[in-house]
Amino acid sequence: MNIQKQMLEAIEAELQKQVARLDQPLTKQFHEMLTYHMGWTGEGAGSDATGKRIRPLLVLLTTASCSNDREKDEAARSPYWLRARSAAAAIELVHNFSLVHDDIQDNSDKRRGRNTVWVNWGAPMAINVGDALFVLANQAILDLTEYYPADVVRQAASILNNSCLDLTRGQFMDMSYEERNDLGLDDYWPMVGGKTSALLAACTQIGALLGNASEAEQDAYRFFGWHLGLAFQVQDDILGIWGDEALIGKSTASDLVEGKNSLPILYGLGKQGKFAQRWAEGPIQLSEVNAVASQLEDEGARSYAEETSEAETKKALECLDRANPRGEAGEAIRQLANMLLKRKQ
Amino acid sequence: MNIQKQMLEAIEAELQKQVARLDQPLTKQFHEMLTYHMGWTGEGAGSDATGKRIRPLLVLLTTASCSNDREKDEAARSPYWLRARSAAAAIELVHNFSLVHDDIQDNSDKRRGRNTVWVNWGAPMAINVGDALFVLANQAILDLTEYYPADVVRQAASILNNSCLDLTRGQFMDMSYEERNDLGLDDYWPMVGGKTSALLAACTQIGALLGNASEAEQDAYRFFGWHLGLAFQVQDDILGIWGDEALIGKSTASDLVEGKNSLPILYGLGKQGKFAQRWAEGPIQLSEVNAVASQLEDEGARSYAEETSEAETKKALECLDRANPRGEAGEAIRQLANMLLKRKQ
Repeated sequence: MNIQKQMLEAIEAELQKQVARLDQPLTKQFHEMLTYHMGWTGEGAGSDATGKRIRPLLVLLTTASCSNDREKDEAARSPYWLRARSAAAAIELVHNFSLVHDDIQDNSDKRRGRNTVWVNWGAPMAINVGDALFVLANQAILDLTEYYPADVVRQAASILNNSCLDLTRGQFMDMSYEERNDLGLDDYWPMVGGKTSALLAACTQIGALLGNASEAEQDAYRFFGWHLGLAFQVQDDILGIWGDEALIGKSTASDLVEGKNSLPILYGLGKQGKFAQRWAEGPIQLSEVNAVASQLEDEGARSYAEETSEAETKKALECLDRANPRGEAGEAIRQLANMLLKRKQ
Repeated sequence: MNIQKQMLEAIEAELQKQVARLDQPLTKQFHEMLTYHMGWTGEGAGSDATGKRIRPLLVLLTTASCSNDREKDEAARSPYWLRARSAAAAIELVHNFSLVHDDIQDNSDKRRGRNTVWVNWGAPMAINVGDALFVLANQAILDLTEYYPADVVRQAASILNNSCLDLTRGQFMDMSYEERNDLGLDDYWPMVGGKTSALLAACTQIGALLGNASEAEQDAYRFFGWHLGLAFQVQDDILGIWGDEALIGKSTASDLVEGKNSLPILYGLGKQGKFAQRWAEGPIQLSEVNAVASQLEDEGARSYAEETSEAETKKALECLDRANPRGEAGEAIRQLANMLLKRKQ
C-alpha cells in the first residue's frame, strides 16, 4: 500500500474516533448529523461525500517528509507520521466546521451533491453542528499530548487557532463585500488569504513542527502551503468563469451568476470597462454567461488570472524546494502539489 | 479597592485586549460587532450591557483563594491571580460565543435590553461573530503560556474545550426537546448540566489548576462550580414562572409562554395532571399565565423545584467548604456564592 493511501486510512479512522466523542446515548442524533456531514452516513454517503481530505493529507505528508530518518528507524513498529494524526484530523474538522457554517451563511442547499446540514435539520441545529466540529478540532489538537511534549502541543494549537481567526476575518470580508460596489483587486488577497490560504499554511506549518523540522524548514513549508492555497484559489476562480461547467450555463456553476468576488471579476471591475458597466446593472443571467465571460476575457481578466496563478504556483514550488521534502513522502507531496496546481477541472 | 473590583477591572482590560486581535484596518466593522456584543460600544453600551462577568470572576477568585501564601509574597509586585486573567477572559468569551449563537437559534431579538447581533447585522454575520469569539477564547487560554508551564496551559485548554463540547450537547438536547412530547424530569439534568453547569465547573476547575491547588482541592472546586450552576439554573427556572416579571404577564418573561423545558414544567408534565393536559393543547397565552402558574404550583412543581434548588445549594456549599478557600478572595467567593444562590430576582 502506498504511503498516501495508508495516510488516508489513518485520517479517516482518526476523524471517526474524534467525532465519536458525541456518540453517546443522549446525543445519538447529534452524532448522526456530524457523521452525515463528514460523508460517512445517510443518503449518498461514501468517498464522493467525504471530500478528498487534502488538508489532513498535507499535514501527514509534511510530517513524514521532514522525518525520513526517524521513519526508517521505526519502520518496524509504526510510521513516525502516525503520531501527527490527531493534528491532521483537527485541521479537517476546522475545514468542515467552516463548510457547515458557510452553507448556512450562503444559503447553499447542496454540498458535494448532497443536502447541506441546515437543509436536513434546520439552521439552528446546523449552527450547533458547526460549533461542535470546531470544539472537536480543538480537542483533537490537544490529543497530540500522547506523543509530543506539552510545548509542541501548545504551539500546534496556537498555529491552528491563529489560522481560524484568519478564517473568520476572510469570511467577514467575503460577506461584507456583498454590500460594496467599490471593490478592486486589492480587496481580493486578504479575503482569499483568510478564507483559503491560512488553513493550508497551518497544515504545512503544523506538519513541519510535528516532523521536528528546523525553524527555517517550518517557514518554508508554511509559505509553500500559503502560496499553494493562493494558486489553487485563483485556478478555482478561472474555472468558475471559463471552466466547462461554468460555460454550459446550467445550475449555479458560474461565478458570474453567483456574483462571487473572484479574481477575474475584481480585475474586470478595476478596468471600469464594459464588463464593469454590465456588472453594475444587476445580476448576470444564465443566458448571458458566455457573452459576459467573453467580454471579461477580452478585457484581459483571464490572462491576468492565469499569470497570477502561475506566479503563485512558482512561489509555492520554490518554497517546497527550499523545504526539501525527503523520502517517499517527499515524492508524494510534490506529486500532490503538482496535481493540485495543474488541475484543469 | 476590594479584590472583586480589582478583578473586574483586570477582566475587562484583558477581554478588550483579546478582542482587539480583530482591531485591524480591514476588519474594523467586524471588531465593532464584537465590541458591541461585549457591551463596550454602540447604543446602550455600559455596565448593564456587559453582564456581570460572574464566570471570569469565579476563575480569578478561585485562583486567588488557592494561592493565598504566594499572594502575600508577591503583594509588592502584582497579585498572583493576575496571571490567570487570560483564562478568565477565555471563559467569558466562550460564554459570549454561546450567547450570540443562542440568540440566532432562539430567534431572540433582545439581549440585556439591546438588539442582538443578528438583529443588527444579520444571521450570517452573527454566526461569524460567534465563531470569532470562540476562536479568541482558544487564543486567550493559550496566552497563559506567558506565566504557566506548557503542561498546565494544555490542561486548562483541555478543561475548557471539554466544557465546550458539553455546551453543544446541552444545546442539542434543548433544541431537540422542542419537537418531543414525551419529556420528563430525567431529561432535565443532562441538558442543564451541559448548558449551564459545565462552564461554571470549568471556571472553578481552571481557577484551582492555575492556583496550583492539589487534585483533591481541584475536584472540590470543580463540583462546587457544577452544583452552583445547577442550583442557579433551578432558581432561574422558578423565577421564570413565579417571579414578579413572569407573573405580570407582559413581554416574554414567562417560561410558560416561551414553552421552555424548565424543571417545574418537566415536573408538571411528569404528573400527567391538569397542567400536562393544558400544555399538550398548545402554547400558553399571556392571559393564562397566572392561572397556569397556580395550577402548576398546586401540583407540587414549585415546592419540588425549591427543594431541589436547596439540595443543590447545600451540595455546592459543602464542596466549597471542602475546597477551603482562603484569605480575602476566599471570603469573596463565599459571598459571591451566597449572592447567586439566594437571589430572589
